[in-house]
Amino acid sequence: MSDRLIIFDTTLRDGEQSPGASMTREEKIRIAKQLEKLRVDVIEAGFAASSNGDFESIKAIASVVKDSTVCSLARANDKDISRAGDALAPAERRRIHTFIATSPLHMQVKLRMSPDQVLEQAIRAVRFARQYTDDVEFSAEDGYRSELPFLAKVCEAVIKEGARTINIPDTVGYAVPSLYGDFIRQLRELTPNSDQAVWSVHCHNDLGMAVANSLAGVSIGGARQVECTINGLGERAGNCSLEEVVMAVKTRRDFFDLDVGIDTRQIVTASKLVSNITGFVVQPNKAIVGANAFAHASGIHQDGVLKARQTYEIMTAEDVGWSANKIVLGKLSGRNAFKQRLEALGIQLDSEQALNDAFQRFKDLADRKAEIFDEDIHALVSGEVAGEDPEQYRFIALSQRSETGERPTARVVYSVNGAEQTAESEGNGPVDATVKAIESVEQSGAELLLFSVNGITSGTTESQGEVTMRLQKAGRIVNGVGADPDIVVASAKAYLSALNKLRSKHEKVNPQV
Amino acid sequence: MSDRLIIFDTTLRDGEQSPGASMTREEKIRIAKQLEKLRVDVIEAGFAASSNGDFESIKAIASVVKDSTVCSLARANDKDISRAGDALAPAERRRIHTFIATSPLHMQVKLRMSPDQVLEQAIRAVRFARQYTDDVEFSAEDGYRSELPFLAKVCEAVIKEGARTINIPDTVGYAVPSLYGDFIRQLRELTPNSDQAVWSVHCHNDLGMAVANSLAGVSIGGARQVECTINGLGERAGNCSLEEVVMAVKTRRDFFDLDVGIDTRQIVTASKLVSNITGFVVQPNKAIVGANAFAHASGIHQDGVLKARQTYEIMTAEDVGWSANKIVLGKLSGRNAFKQRLEALGIQLDSEQALNDAFQRFKDLADRKAEIFDEDIHALVSGEVAGEDPEQYRFIALSQRSETGERPTARVVYSVNGAEQTAESEGNGPVDATVKAIESVEQSGAELLLFSVNGITSGTTESQGEVTMRLQKAGRIVNGVGADPDIVVASAKAYLSALNKLRSKHEKVNPQV
Repeated sequence: MSDRLIIFDTTLRDGEQSPGASMTREEKIRIAKQLEKLRVDVIEAGFAASSNGDFESIKAIASVVKDSTVCSLARANDKDISRAGDALAPAERRRIHTFIATSPLHMQVKLRMSPDQVLEQAIRAVRFARQYTDDVEFSAEDGYRSELPFLAKVCEAVIKEGARTINIPDTVGYAVPSLYGDFIRQLRELTPNSDQAVWSVHCHNDLGMAVANSLAGVSIGGARQVECTINGLGERAGNCSLEEVVMAVKTRRDFFDLDVGIDTRQIVTASKLVSNITGFVVQPNKAIVGANAFAHASGIHQDGVLKARQTYEIMTAEDVGWSANKIVLGKLSGRNAFKQRLEALGIQLDSEQALNDAFQRFKDLADRKAEIFDEDIHALVSGEVAGEDPEQYRFIALSQRSETGERPTARVVYSVNGAEQTAESEGNGPVDATVKAIESVEQSGAELLLFSVNGITSGTTESQGEVTMRLQKAGRIVNGVGADPDIVVASAKAYLSALNKLRSKHEKVNPQV
Repeated sequence: MSDRLIIFDTTLRDGEQSPGASMTREEKIRIAKQLEKLRVDVIEAGFAASSNGDFESIKAIASVVKDSTVCSLARANDKDISRAGDALAPAERRRIHTFIATSPLHMQVKLRMSPDQVLEQAIRAVRFARQYTDDVEFSAEDGYRSELPFLAKVCEAVIKEGARTINIPDTVGYAVPSLYGDFIRQLRELTPNSDQAVWSVHCHNDLGMAVANSLAGVSIGGARQVECTINGLGERAGNCSLEEVVMAVKTRRDFFDLDVGIDTRQIVTASKLVSNITGFVVQPNKAIVGANAFAHASGIHQDGVLKARQTYEIMTAEDVGWSANKIVLGKLSGRNAFKQRLEALGIQLDSEQALNDAFQRFKDLADRKAEIFDEDIHALVSGEVAGEDPEQYRFIALSQRSETGERPTARVVYSVNGAEQTAESEGNGPVDATVKAIESVEQSGAELLLFSVNGITSGTTESQGEVTMRLQKAGRIVNGVGADPDIVVASAKAYLSALNKLRSKHEKVNPQV
């Protein structure tokens, strides 16, 4: 046991399992780099055996991340574990996270295995994983609904095999803090060699208590690792939210008395990055990272707060990085200022040509929009970053019109592998006409699951609109994102971006974990 | 103490205090009616003394709600309490909720009063409130940061004066479940006449633990009322979420052993109504009411779940009303079917003419959109419902165009109190041009705080887009909403709707509570 709370982020694994939140390799690398800046202890980068795409993403992240441990999930079998081990080979610090279900229901119905068989497989898995790394984590899936004596027997056995971290998930989000905390405490007491491992909690948010349950696992149960995700992303109602659990431990240090290594001023940037990439909006009243979370600090309730901040504030907006979002560039900014800002944002373009192209787009945008924010720059260069798949589809131009009483029409000009295409259609609205125009030529047959619009920088109609289009085809789901001050143009860009992702070679099947 | 948990909803009071969530009287009535359908025990309808608008809203809700108790907040002074009493006069069941701060920090810095003065004022307030109703609730603001012996003295005194409910808020969202539960338990033990009142909890979500804290107040502390809001709406990170706390108590009945009167199948409808009216989106991974909360039930993980639902499900989507959202009407539906559907949705139009107008708009929409959902109908009749302020501004027609390389333009035709206006402008995009066109004539000078777009029914571009425009002028914030399959038309409607609200006479100042 330690006085340090280990923060294990699984945005790229459990978070990505949210229907619709799938990410490309390049997007995963961007998030992983931000997680490293945030000083996350462990980054679960994916589930290597689930797809070639996931394998390659983990390998790429293992190659670029230096300060955080990089981890892959693996079912408790040799094939999964060797895929995880191979993907993690480039990492400076690597962890294999292997799991098997231990609850009566999951063993009987899902695994169709006896408890003894499960125990045996857990032991073999940890033993095999130790061939790849000393840092092996074992998870008992549906652990909280498992029988304590059996679960303790499994934990004791895998610790003996060298598992350094033992994770007890509340897989279905069924726990209540006091019960879950007691469960972890009892389990540790029943496990004779419990002091030889770090105990970990992994809570789902189905009843809205993932953060409180995780912290009860820590304060009552003695766990010293929390598994969590940015914005609480994850299957169904999601996972324990990183930003909430970290700020609770920091703000209530008087009670928890634990250190966390997180640089909290990187939280808001991480939150926005994950939201932009996945198209999952953060609601305004979300704790810590919602637009209103510190709203009295930004104009409304300043009077009361000015008398004494503590009357209504227990932490400050600056603590979590809200102030970092400043106007940085404008029409008069030069190429050098642009390049420096890219570097500060951690964006690497792979050639002088790519830089020049991005700068040209920056100047075009600055002609139409007075204030250029960091988010605008991210939007500007997405698709240009080193490692991105080359784009098949590129937007060139659009003209559209609508008039009450007539059918809206759109004409889209774009290129496919360099060859220009012109597409025209009518539709229910200009955006619908735009999508129908592109489909009339491309015939992708993809189903549009989501169309959403967010202002990138502020709420005004002068700012850029960022459109997310989520397409589904043959079981694959991709998010295309496009930004432009013209919302119809942004929609065309988003649709083409989604088509690019659909045509890319990343095949991915999310198994049930 | 009772085996029943009282659900006290404060969406219309604490929820409305969220910057940007202000509602018109008609909107508040719609939400109150849905809360009654949800079988909420107590509806806190507003803060009568805060504004004439709030006073009128409470009065109107007190007149239409029959099954729930209607409540108004009031500071601990005669003027506030008499305003609350007057506003509540039409109610069948009425409650006055009076409060004063009891923490050392709030008493010294905010109130500049001694503890004895606070005690005296609390007693006088409850005594005065009892002249209006037997059902008086007393809240100790910042109660959780108060000193226990003093707080117990205040509670004992106000119970003696006839306060039936004692509420101990965690005003700044600072609590941890085990500590907060113990605090309520100790407070009740220190209050000699504690058994003569129902104890209540009111938790804010700044550290993401409002639901768990509330439930610890119940299970450890013995509280039997929870104050909460739909979607967890509220200042900063919001309040305890009604849907989460209710479903936790229902799902974990084995642990809580409490009855709640809520009709859970009305939860999703309530959530969508509040989200649509306030323009506050619900994130997809929000527990219970997020679009993904039951996502495995809708296509992705069906295989695993089909083996045995309980493997990954602890409640069903139907339990909370997800299935209620069905296709109900189309092009071939007649006037009678439309009328019946309005009745089923609880929408009352005040004349045959209003019904005929709404049916004509329904037919127009059905010409452009194959499937008409309940949400479409709500959007169609908003502005037509009995009690709504007459609209000054009405949308008539729009034509707009944009073409790469040229400035987008828009021409909007609308009426102001029946007189037709035509406005034209360029802009950064077609939506920007539309807003600039209207402003070029109206010169409202309002600041646009938020522009957001949501698909009303599904994600596809064929569905209607619902645009929210949040305007601020001279300290007032209003939300205008417009729906149309053409996103630019929806934007024009939303802007005109916001202007209507800005020009209406509801003045409202949110005091700090």
